[in-house]
Amino acid sequence: MSYDPDNIFAKILRGEIPSEKLYEDEHTYVFMDIMPRTEGHCLIIPKTPCRNMLDATPEQLAACIATVQKMGHAVMKAFDAKGVTVQQFNEAAGGQEVFHLHYHVHPRHAGVPMGPAGQMGDFEQIKANAEKIRAAL
Amino acid sequence: MSYDPDNIFAKILRGEIPSEKLYEDEHTYVFMDIMPRTEGHCLIIPKTPCRNMLDATPEQLAACIATVQKMGHAVMKAFDAKGVTVQQFNEAAGGQEVFHLHYHVHPRHAGVPMGPAGQMGDFEQIKANAEKIRAAL
Repeated sequence: MSYDPDNIFAKILRGEIPSEKLYEDEHTYVFMDIMPRTEGHCLIIPKTPCRNMLDATPEQLAACIATVQKMGHAVMKAFDAKGVTVQQFNEAAGGQEVFHLHYHVHPRHAGVPMGPAGQMGDFEQIKANAEKIRAAL
Repeated sequence: MSYDPDNIFAKILRGEIPSEKLYEDEHTYVFMDIMPRTEGHCLIIPKTPCRNMLDATPEQLAACIATVQKMGHAVMKAFDAKGVTVQQFNEAAGGQEVFHLHYHVHPRHAGVPMGPAGQMGDFEQIKANAEKIRAAL
């Protein structure tokens, strides 16, 4: 399996298509999922190419997981959430749809299930949620 | 939130209760989930205490995610899987049931959904799956 430099997250990193950016550092970039399964669903990606966890370097993995932790705290604060669910999918059979390594971070509330995958979110709501997360960072 | 040293994964690490061990290194320990949601479902934990991702150190996170990658490759080889799903739950609202940081690794096959959570597995089947994973490592 090889890396396709025209996947949509690569285009987001190059600024060729827009994203609702939350955070970036030297090694990682964070933005809102446009098909949110929770209020505050965001994605952490490395700035350098890799298809998924299976071909990532230790440095890419460590950088991403540190930012996942940071975003976990931020989304809990932003939404007064009581927990966080982290998901990471590898290859189509594993649930992956965009082939650039990404971690899903979901703020969670007791008794509130995650919504279904694959449904486009409301952009105004996504922007409002992004504001809350940026304020919490 | 504090760390309870009597959680069951701490007891597994101390050898006070048994586990179907797959791998260990200086910083991490890997064993079979006894409530498997996939054939080959295993758990990666740090050897040192932390409740979940939210209070983990960068070193604990980096060590775990490197072992998650290693186990991803191993379970794909062991079960001729075409993908891997990684899950990590934080606090009860986030889906966490044992309060020692752990990553779930699931080998995945196209079109085969994960099974339900919370159902005790067949121990002979778990042991047989563990053998396959150890052989793949």
